[in-house]
Parts: sequence; C-alpha cells; structure tokens
Amino acid sequence: MRTVNVPLGLRSYDIQIGSGLLAGLGKACGRLKLGHHCAVISDTNVAPYYGTRVCRSLNDAGFETRLITVPAGETAKSLKTVAACYDQLATHRLERKSFIVALGGGVVGDLAGFVAATYLRGVAFVQIPTTLLAQVDSSVGGKVGVNLKAGKNLVGAFYQPRLVICDLDTLRSLPEREYRSGLAEVIKYGIIYDAALFAGLERHLPSVLKRDPQTLKEVIARCCQIKAEIVGKDETESGLRAILNFGHTIGHGLEAISHYGKYLHGEAISIGQVAAAMLSSKLMGLSLEENERISRLFRQAGLPTQVKLNHAQCTRLLSAIQLDKKVADGQLRFVLARRLGEVEFGRSVPAPMLEEVLATMDGKPAHKAGRNHHALHGRS
Amino acid sequence: MRTVNVPLGLRSYDIQIGSGLLAGLGKACGRLKLGHHCAVISDTNVAPYYGTRVCRSLNDAGFETRLITVPAGETAKSLKTVAACYDQLATHRLERKSFIVALGGGVVGDLAGFVAATYLRGVAFVQIPTTLLAQVDSSVGGKVGVNLKAGKNLVGAFYQPRLVICDLDTLRSLPEREYRSGLAEVIKYGIIYDAALFAGLERHLPSVLKRDPQTLKEVIARCCQIKAEIVGKDETESGLRAILNFGHTIGHGLEAISHYGKYLHGEAISIGQVAAAMLSSKLMGLSLEENERISRLFRQAGLPTQVKLNHAQCTRLLSAIQLDKKVADGQLRFVLARRLGEVEFGRSVPAPMLEEVLATMDGKPAHKAGRNHHALHGRS
Repeated sequence: MRTVNVPLGLRSYDIQIGSGLLAGLGKACGRLKLGHHCAVISDTNVAPYYGTRVCRSLNDAGFETRLITVPAGETAKSLKTVAACYDQLATHRLERKSFIVALGGGVVGDLAGFVAATYLRGVAFVQIPTTLLAQVDSSVGGKVGVNLKAGKNLVGAFYQPRLVICDLDTLRSLPEREYRSGLAEVIKYGIIYDAALFAGLERHLPSVLKRDPQTLKEVIARCCQIKAEIVGKDETESGLRAILNFGHTIGHGLEAISHYGKYLHGEAISIGQVAAAMLSSKLMGLSLEENERISRLFRQAGLPTQVKLNHAQCTRLLSAIQLDKKVADGQLRFVLARRLGEVEFGRSVPAPMLEEVLATMDGKPAHKAGRNHHALHGRS
Repeated sequence: MRTVNVPLGLRSYDIQIGSGLLAGLGKACGRLKLGHHCAVISDTNVAPYYGTRVCRSLNDAGFETRLITVPAGETAKSLKTVAACYDQLATHRLERKSFIVALGGGVVGDLAGFVAATYLRGVAFVQIPTTLLAQVDSSVGGKVGVNLKAGKNLVGAFYQPRLVICDLDTLRSLPEREYRSGLAEVIKYGIIYDAALFAGLERHLPSVLKRDPQTLKEVIARCCQIKAEIVGKDETESGLRAILNFGHTIGHGLEAISHYGKYLHGEAISIGQVAAAMLSSKLMGLSLEENERISRLFRQAGLPTQVKLNHAQCTRLLSAIQLDKKVADGQLRFVLARRLGEVEFGRSVPAPMLEEVLATMDGKPAHKAGRNHHALHGRS
C-alpha cells in the first residue's frame, strides 16, 4: 500500500492506494473517531459489485450502516438526486457525528460529497473511488457538487474527505472505455506538472493499458501526490489550482452541449487538452514537437482528439464556455502550456482564435492556409 | 453608526448598525473589491419597500444588478426555491467574482446565503437584514441553509458574509408581531451571556417596544457583539456556539410539527426558552426567582409562554426533536441555564422529564402535584 497525504492543516487527510483495501475500511474508519451511524452512497452500477463488502467491513467494525443507491450516470449528479439523498438521511436519522461513505466513480463522489458538505451543515465524508478517473482526480482535493441544466458543476462546495481509499481491485471491473477515459486525467498531470511522468506514460503505455497493478500503483500515487501538492498550496482555487483545469474549459463545454450524454468526461477533456495544446502553440510558444507528443499520447491511449461541430453546435459550445466558472469579467480564461510539465493559468484567449482552433479539429483539411493551421492539420 | 467586527481571521467582517445606511450600500460594496455583477435576492414582502433603493445604490456605485424576488414566508426556504435561484443566476451569468446581496429577514438571508455558499462553489455575499430577528441573530455568524420536510435547517453550510448592514429604518415597516418575535432572540442573549443586558431589557422594555432608534441601536449592537464573540470563538459549532441554541431544540420542534405555519420563529423559541428555563431549574439549580423573571419578560414582550399539546402532538414533537441536529448518539442534548447570563451546553435531558415540563405549560393546573410542578404552575 502507498499512502499520500493531502496537506491542508486541520483538514489534512490520507489517500491509501493498493490492492485488497476494502476489507480494512471499517477499521480505517474506526481510527477516525466518527459517530456510530453511517450511510454508504453508491450507484446501481457499483453497489452490486462492492456494496455488500463495504457494508460488511463497516458493520464488522461496529458501525450501523445504510446503503443508499442512486441511478448510475452523469444525469444522477443533479439537485433532484441530492434531495432524494437528504430525505433518506433524515429517514435514517443521521446525526452530526454520523458520516457518509461515497462508493463509486466521480459522479457518486461529487454527489455524495455535496450531500455530506450540506447535510446538517456538514457531516464527515470518506471516499472510495472505484474508477481510475475518480482515483486520480475527483476524489482528491475536496471539490464536490452537482450539475445544473445550464452547466456542469455550477453548484457545489469545497469540502475535504477525512480519508480516501483507492482499492486497485475495483479497477478490474471497469469497462475499457471508462478506464481509458481516466487516462485522460493521468496524462494531464504529465502535461501540467511533470514531464518525467509524461515520458514514463509514453514508455509504459502498454502495461498501463493492461492495468498492471504494480505500474498502476505508482502512476496513481504520483497523480495523487501532484494533485495533493497543488491543492495543498491553493485549496479554493484562487490561483495555482486552476492549472488542474487544463483542457477542461472546452471539455466541460462539450459535455454540456451534448447534455452529458455523448462524451465521457475523460473523452471530452482529451479533445479539450488537444485544443488547449494548439492554443498553447499559438499563444505560448509550445513547440510543435511537444504539441505532437501530446496528441499522439491521447490517440495511443484510445482517446478522441478530433471533434466535428456544425455552426450551431460551435455557437452553443462558445456560449456554454462563457457560462463556465473559469470566466472572469467576461474574458475567456484558459490554462495553457509553455512546455511539457509547465503551464500558466488565466491566459486570455480571443473567441475567434478558439473558433479557428476548433475548426481545425474536425479531421478535415483546414480551409484557411495559415501557417499554424497547415502545420496542425499536417499532424492531426 | 455603530460597527461590530466579527473576528474570524481571513473571514472577518463588519456589521454596520444605524439609520439611513441603505443609501451607502453601493459604496460599501465598492470597498470590498468584488466583481462587477451582483444579484439582489429579496422576497415579495420586502422587495416592494427597499428593492429599488438597494438596486439604485448598487447601480450608482457602478455595479450591474439583478433583482431576484422569491415568495415571502418560511415555506420559501426550500430546495425548490434554491434551485429557482440557481437557474436565475445562471441566466444572468453570474461569475465567481460576482456577489449576492440578501435583502430581507431571516428566511431570505438563510436562503440567499446558502445559494451564495454553493453557487459556483461559493460567491461573495452581503447581508441586509430587514427584521429585528435577522439583525440580531440570523445575519451574524454564517449559518445558512434551508428546511426539509423532515425538519428545519437540515441542509446548509457555514458561510460568512463579507459585510452586514443593519439599517434601523427598515424596522419601521415591520409588523408588530414580527418585531416582538425578534425580541425573543434579544432576550436570549441576556439569558445566555449577559445578565446586565437582561436587566436593561427589563428596565427599558417600554422604549424597546416603541422601537426607539437610540435604544435599539445600543441593544442591537450589544446582541451582535455577543454573537460575534461567541462565533469568533467557535465558528462551526463544535462547542461554545451551541449556547446560542438556548430554547431552540423545543422551538424548532414546535415549528416543525406545526409545519412552520402557526408560530413565528421567535414565538416558538419563546415557548422553548421558558421550557428550557424550567428544565434548568430541575437539572441545574436555576433559581425560581430568575426562572420567574425569564417567563415574565417574555410575557411582557407579548410573546407566548404556554403551549397546549394533545398526546399525538406531544409524540410528534418528541420525534421532531430527536431528528434535530442537537442530538448526539441518540441522547437529547439541551442548553440549560445555571443562572441569568450563564448557561451550559450538551446537558442530557431524559425524555420523560421533557414530557412532564411540556405538560405543565398548557396553562391549566398540573395533574401531578410534584413540588416543581406545583411551583411552576403557581407562576405560569
């Protein structure tokens, strides 16, 4: 087992990464000195696999446990599901010292975390992320929340868990597409913070794709460490933390205009990161060679790097991006890369340049023959 | 103008108390270095009186302002209204640096505060409490939230405003019953923290009831100061802050079983405080003389001190109290008074004793002739 500490003063907590950790959950919770009651929030995909095992581990450690199952999928990340959870917590009489265990992927973690942050003005919260994406990203750092019709994650809080348990065994049951989607966040850490991690992923991609436990343990621990370091310096995203949003402005927009249906999150931010890399070449001097390495790694990981938008879709995408939280004073703000491992946040991008880049990403020859277009087209 | 600072480190803020302060709102917000956009959330009672004036003051200071009006009354303090507010904020494209102004009583403050705490994971928040209750209590200390069917304030957050403006002029339009309801919280501060304030209220009750601005300014400032002191020592109610809940356990229960319809909050906690004083005499040695001064002051302020419950209502009340946040490990926990100005929190009260006390509060002779019953009956 590897342990990564997220350094947040009184709100610090550990992330445990390893195989066979679910069995020790109850004892781990016992060490946190929480109340006697807890609710496990899971979804209809994950609960059948691990619900019983998780509840048994908690019961064996003396906790009174209720399992709350929500529908699987991004549409469950809504105020409606939040309200249904509140009602069940009230029925089960959870108290201030009770705690909530999130068992599932990013949707369950974000949803259950928001419920924990707001029920009785906040109860303790333990995360068991069961997808690669949740293990390396959404379970670390305390961002919780739900979607509105108007956009993703428009409602939420910063609320830290007391413990995160990443059991690698839970990744075995993950569908291939979900697993690859998680790799989009893994690759992101290389781009924004650690060129050596990026190079390691290029080298060891086959064993990563085979889900080799030894490789995974190291990769996941490194990703958690990077995120912990960033979050430890900037818990509430007043500055540095924003670099974690590399590729997310466009990614969230794509998810929003397809009503969270067409793309998995990792697929949307794969396209978003390729677009952000192109903007980086235009505005920050990111070399064409590194730009090419970025899109190649996403492609080799089986992730989409192209998007075909008609005029109406493009307009809706720009409008969704305007609504995104990363807009300040009406200006589009992006995280852009200077080189692999080094990014800058808050870069203003003119809307026409964004449209231009999106137009080159449709897999067809570019209409304009500008130098960058041509070069980018040659490599896409 | 009097200014009270709430000392919470980086989250410290000022409460301004005085007449004619609304006109200076825009300038005051300008000094906070917030974004350009704001939304004023008010209700159908208050918006017609002060909505235009507040928006004009903000516009004159250069802010782009939207007024969002919610229905008046406790039933608006719901997840449904929260969702409607979110949708309007999204439509008006509020950004992270935008801010929300709450203009109204406790319901509007709690609701708008919860919206501010959770929209985009938190935007800045300015409070303009327009009722006595909100000025001395709900606008100070950062407790925000909404009700569930299962109970009051079951959902919420601790979220501090950036500024609170108590304009005494807004109290002039307050209906008499609402005004007296606010006095229940004023009297509470005397009981829990300041015997001299309590004695002052006994002495100056006529000018308090006449809403004399000079008297009010001093009384409100003292209440805010007490609450600020308590909240400064214990922001998230892990200990001391719980003393602010004197009389609230029963009060909230009464509100819940009457579906937030029959009693104003101050009326419910007036009954709750009289009951808590009786429990204090039984369990903490509160003198019968002080017990009598407490119920007399509530009576003279025109607040209810009796409650008639049939068996079914009593059962529902106890069940509602069990669900209250102030239960720990299944035990009923009360704030009880040792003497005027000195209380203790977390005192366990046996359910049968609570039932017994409630039975003596119906204004009829007690059925059992226990010493305390008889004595209490003699004074009720």
